[in-house]
Amino acid sequence: MIASTPAPEKLVSSVLREYSDATRAVLFDYLPTAEPRRYLYDLVADYPRRGGRGFRPSLCIATARAFGAPLDAAIQTAVAIELMHNAMLIHDDIEDESDERRGSPTMHVSQGVPIAINVGDMLSMLSMKPLLDNRRTLGTSLSLRILEETERMARESAEGQALELGWRRDNVNDVVESDYLEMVLKKTCWLATIHPCRVGALIGTGGMLDVDRFIRFGFFLGAAFQIQDDLLNLVGDGKSYGKELGGDILEGKRTLMLIRLFEQATTAERARLSAMLGQPRAERSAEDVGWVRERMDAYGCIDYARQVAHGLAGAAHHEFTLLYQHLPDSRDKRFIGALPSWVIERN
Amino acid sequence: MIASTPAPEKLVSSVLREYSDATRAVLFDYLPTAEPRRYLYDLVADYPRRGGRGFRPSLCIATARAFGAPLDAAIQTAVAIELMHNAMLIHDDIEDESDERRGSPTMHVSQGVPIAINVGDMLSMLSMKPLLDNRRTLGTSLSLRILEETERMARESAEGQALELGWRRDNVNDVVESDYLEMVLKKTCWLATIHPCRVGALIGTGGMLDVDRFIRFGFFLGAAFQIQDDLLNLVGDGKSYGKELGGDILEGKRTLMLIRLFEQATTAERARLSAMLGQPRAERSAEDVGWVRERMDAYGCIDYARQVAHGLAGAAHHEFTLLYQHLPDSRDKRFIGALPSWVIERN
Repeated sequence: MIASTPAPEKLVSSVLREYSDATRAVLFDYLPTAEPRRYLYDLVADYPRRGGRGFRPSLCIATARAFGAPLDAAIQTAVAIELMHNAMLIHDDIEDESDERRGSPTMHVSQGVPIAINVGDMLSMLSMKPLLDNRRTLGTSLSLRILEETERMARESAEGQALELGWRRDNVNDVVESDYLEMVLKKTCWLATIHPCRVGALIGTGGMLDVDRFIRFGFFLGAAFQIQDDLLNLVGDGKSYGKELGGDILEGKRTLMLIRLFEQATTAERARLSAMLGQPRAERSAEDVGWVRERMDAYGCIDYARQVAHGLAGAAHHEFTLLYQHLPDSRDKRFIGALPSWVIERN
Repeated sequence: MIASTPAPEKLVSSVLREYSDATRAVLFDYLPTAEPRRYLYDLVADYPRRGGRGFRPSLCIATARAFGAPLDAAIQTAVAIELMHNAMLIHDDIEDESDERRGSPTMHVSQGVPIAINVGDMLSMLSMKPLLDNRRTLGTSLSLRILEETERMARESAEGQALELGWRRDNVNDVVESDYLEMVLKKTCWLATIHPCRVGALIGTGGMLDVDRFIRFGFFLGAAFQIQDDLLNLVGDGKSYGKELGGDILEGKRTLMLIRLFEQATTAERARLSAMLGQPRAERSAEDVGWVRERMDAYGCIDYARQVAHGLAGAAHHEFTLLYQHLPDSRDKRFIGALPSWVIERN
């Protein structure tokens, strides 16, 4: 029998399924099932149980393997990444006043803000535990290095979140594309792509690699990922997307499409847009959302964002070639090489 | 000249001042002054700048020194404790809907809830950095051990917070004294007393001590501390206390005095109390607070709580004797020995 090479999208989904399952098999061991259940530990398991693709832990594992480590060496770090991701989702949902997450009510909608904050804090702290356990498999020195990387990632993420929340709170409407890309670099890319690549490569090489080279690759890949995510919020299939369609407009989220609209709109339109975004969220109407959406079409903002995402994906593929050309062929390497196209084609 | 032994309260204030200053001298080096300032780093420094007595870091340093380590060996850990304490204060203030902290508006009152959550997350993450830097002075193994202790402390704290928030949200009014003490053990004592003692002793002995023995001492001391704190909220001098007087009643906080009142009150009074606590905070009036306060006096709830705090302080002193009798006399040992009386006498 001749081994067949699967199509890139098939490869990506099968690797994601495999590594995501491997991560989840270990992840739930890190979630206590003790008291207090009702106000804490049942809730701590809620977001992880809702699923998700497992993109972040899979990228960590694949990078470690592509650089020569076995899956076992990366699994605790992958678990920590997924736990931290879920912790951030809970707090982000409060901060963004989001109603839905993965097709169900967000934590603060079902449990109230105080308990939701505390559940997020607990998940964030629980993400430290697998990193401390790393010492048994990776040794103390590499374990501490990965903890340092984690601290850096969390700092970058909070900086990005601060920018986005500040712009929204103060209704800052002179944000330009480079501000937006800096925010995305910090808020999205560090956790979604840069950190998984960096720690994966550290595990794969026993800490011997200069991992700053992954910042460019991770930025291009993660920014394309974020723009595609924001596009799906406007044009996707709400059911499979798991959040309310057009919710970003309602939340006043500074997306590339919104920034482009501000740049292209007439003075009168900009004033209307600014007034709408200056209102409390509850006072923004479905009609407002419809109008913004229609203006985005009229000015080609959605096509523009698609083009930017394509450009970023191309740049990510170029960086991939530079980073990985000296490594032997492997399923993991092919998976990583297929991600730039996948992030802009998924729905 | 004959060296004079200062009175215990003088000793406590002078040690607190000295160790708190030493901690603050290093703490601010860990707070970035980079961008984004307005939405993040100016705010991260806000609560630490407001001062506070520095009880937690001082207890850590004094324990380390009483067990033989120099101040320098404990300072980073003390900084981490103070940063984590400030991080928790920001989230607690949101969760408790508190308006004032150390005499100024709370973070979410001045900045809004979304930004305040993010600032707390950042401070919590920044508290990891001095613990990672410990490796240079304490070595990798003891540094990882202290990180493990920190993870345990944060877990206990979040469990205690979950209990208190759950009772409040669901208006649970059959909480008994043992439930209350378990909640205080987790929510207050782990961060305020148990953890500083445990990590201090680990530093003092190079990780060679069984630190579970500090749980009893820390529980008795910390519970006395918490009850005194709650008493000051009812009977203290609001200006030096830095929070609104009677604010705990308004917040519906389950204090020992409130639990005692539920136990002593008539059926009709219990029903009125329960109805009042079942309302949203905004609907509770100054009149309600006055009535609860008056009933607490009528049933001797405040005197009762004072007696319990005295008993706990006595037990803490007994545990101190057991733990410290074999150590040589030192200013640090005398400071720790003076704390049980101090926590119930301070105002």
